[in-house]
Amino acid sequence: MTGQRDILITEVALRDGSHAIAHQYTVEQVTNVARALDEANVPYMEVAHGDGLSGSSLQYGLSRTDEMKLIEAAVSVCKHSKVAVLLLPGIGTVNELKEAHRIGAKMARIATHITEADISKQHIEMAKNLGMETVGFLMMSHMAPTEKLVEQAKLMESYGADVVYVVDSAGALLPHEVRERIRALRDHLSIDIGFHGHNNLSLAMANTLAAIEEGAKRIDGSVRCLGAGAGNTQTEVLVAVCDRLGIQTGVDIYKMMDLAEHIVAPILNSPQEITKDSLVLGYAGVYSSFLLHAQRAAKKFGIDSRDILVELGKRKVVGGQEDMIIDVAAEIAGQKAGAAV
Amino acid sequence: MTGQRDILITEVALRDGSHAIAHQYTVEQVTNVARALDEANVPYMEVAHGDGLSGSSLQYGLSRTDEMKLIEAAVSVCKHSKVAVLLLPGIGTVNELKEAHRIGAKMARIATHITEADISKQHIEMAKNLGMETVGFLMMSHMAPTEKLVEQAKLMESYGADVVYVVDSAGALLPHEVRERIRALRDHLSIDIGFHGHNNLSLAMANTLAAIEEGAKRIDGSVRCLGAGAGNTQTEVLVAVCDRLGIQTGVDIYKMMDLAEHIVAPILNSPQEITKDSLVLGYAGVYSSFLLHAQRAAKKFGIDSRDILVELGKRKVVGGQEDMIIDVAAEIAGQKAGAAV
Repeated sequence: MTGQRDILITEVALRDGSHAIAHQYTVEQVTNVARALDEANVPYMEVAHGDGLSGSSLQYGLSRTDEMKLIEAAVSVCKHSKVAVLLLPGIGTVNELKEAHRIGAKMARIATHITEADISKQHIEMAKNLGMETVGFLMMSHMAPTEKLVEQAKLMESYGADVVYVVDSAGALLPHEVRERIRALRDHLSIDIGFHGHNNLSLAMANTLAAIEEGAKRIDGSVRCLGAGAGNTQTEVLVAVCDRLGIQTGVDIYKMMDLAEHIVAPILNSPQEITKDSLVLGYAGVYSSFLLHAQRAAKKFGIDSRDILVELGKRKVVGGQEDMIIDVAAEIAGQKAGAAV
Repeated sequence: MTGQRDILITEVALRDGSHAIAHQYTVEQVTNVARALDEANVPYMEVAHGDGLSGSSLQYGLSRTDEMKLIEAAVSVCKHSKVAVLLLPGIGTVNELKEAHRIGAKMARIATHITEADISKQHIEMAKNLGMETVGFLMMSHMAPTEKLVEQAKLMESYGADVVYVVDSAGALLPHEVRERIRALRDHLSIDIGFHGHNNLSLAMANTLAAIEEGAKRIDGSVRCLGAGAGNTQTEVLVAVCDRLGIQTGVDIYKMMDLAEHIVAPILNSPQEITKDSLVLGYAGVYSSFLLHAQRAAKKFGIDSRDILVELGKRKVVGGQEDMIIDVAAEIAGQKAGAAV
């Protein structure tokens, strides 16, 4: 398949999907998935630990296989598709980026929290110096107002990024919020805009279509919904929906369906679905790492963990502020005791 | 919880969800789900065989439990919620409707193919005579142009229906198509409009929000996505999304989440997801009953079953025309042979 593509899809099952299988990918699995993605003419596929290069750790989960081996495996079977890597400054360093580039990665996606684009400068510049196509990836985009998003995206553009993504890490954005954000970026930036959705509120496809309508040209999907939380926009479904809408993806629909059913589904221990936990994370708009802490605090104070998570979401608490969970729990417990008098 | 409801939700996991578990509901399961739905303040719940009253048969699947026993069980635990039944004229008759009413069903949903509303006349009239709230349910709504839908909906209104539903049985409608249909019905009818979605294209939530925006007041959902094909709009997620959008459902979000996680999920043999089969049905827009026939014909002619299904969708072939499957398969095989010369 050749011809024009209205949008460029990046398949993230081999990175974001790593979360869904506790980072247990084997070289054989990655080889099989990558080969099928290449044959289906998917332009980009991201390969790395779920938390990006160097994510393998006790804190983020140990990878079964060295991610460089997985990247090599993907590169070895790609005739057309390009392999991308994700890097979160602070977790990964320029050293891993250089290594990934040396073994064949062609795209670098540099990810920061929505308010911390400034820490991406050296990594974006290094990726550009290496000759890689470079993406700025603004995570937890729902946590800042649109003006802040524009400001942060412009920083990434100024560092040399070729693309900036609105990343709905918690699956918390509503379609009108995606629309507003993509439109603002289109108005203020001259580089391509991308969107990465999660399905915690069953809105990944709705949000993706809203993003495309507003002019996003780079779209992430995960085959069979294989991603963190409730998974991402399901790639084979996205390709089918785009076809029905007359949006050219250049991707072979039948081959993507076959990949999903015969290669990816057997990798999953259990199908992706919207569970109580993933729903509450999207509803509250908080980090998944807060969940366990909130459940423990709720038990201690005899309250509902969801009340804690919703309050944390309202206060826009970020990773590293886990100590606030106890404060919030104590406050809610106090209010309930007061109300009960 | 009391107060105003902007939309009225009908939970269909105890009817449409019956498909997902091969009609194996027990009295205990239905009692537990119905009690929790009532406690969560869901206004309506539908209980019946997946194909409606009298659906239990070799052709449609035998129910493990007599559906009247399941209806009785649901009624017995409902303090506020009303129990609805589905009836497809030709499968169920007015006799089963009378019996369901006698044991406590308060709402009758009379379902026909999008072009066959005229066969619902006597059933709608009977339901109204029994004093039941009555819904006209236009299935496979994607298969007719909007003018036809309006014409058929007006017939149901003229028979006395209190509500008419746009039913996206195959999960084939796109958001702009839902929008156009709901808007047209709002323009031409004076009764409430409803929407029943399926998730085969991962658009159940997007389509439901489009329907609500255009003025649909009655919305179907299935807790934990428990419905035919890829399931319906997931009720507990819908309630959370509506809350975020300021749309009052009157339903308790936490109780719905708990029901989904602790009562409904254990009933499922395997979580609902968008598989190759459910995706191709939504993509092609055809009846699920065509799937097996198309796969057999594809094998016989050495072609891809998806090409058959897509062509059947284009020709708007309906149930009962299964013999056309062989004709279409032969034609496609002929074209391929011609093209190969």
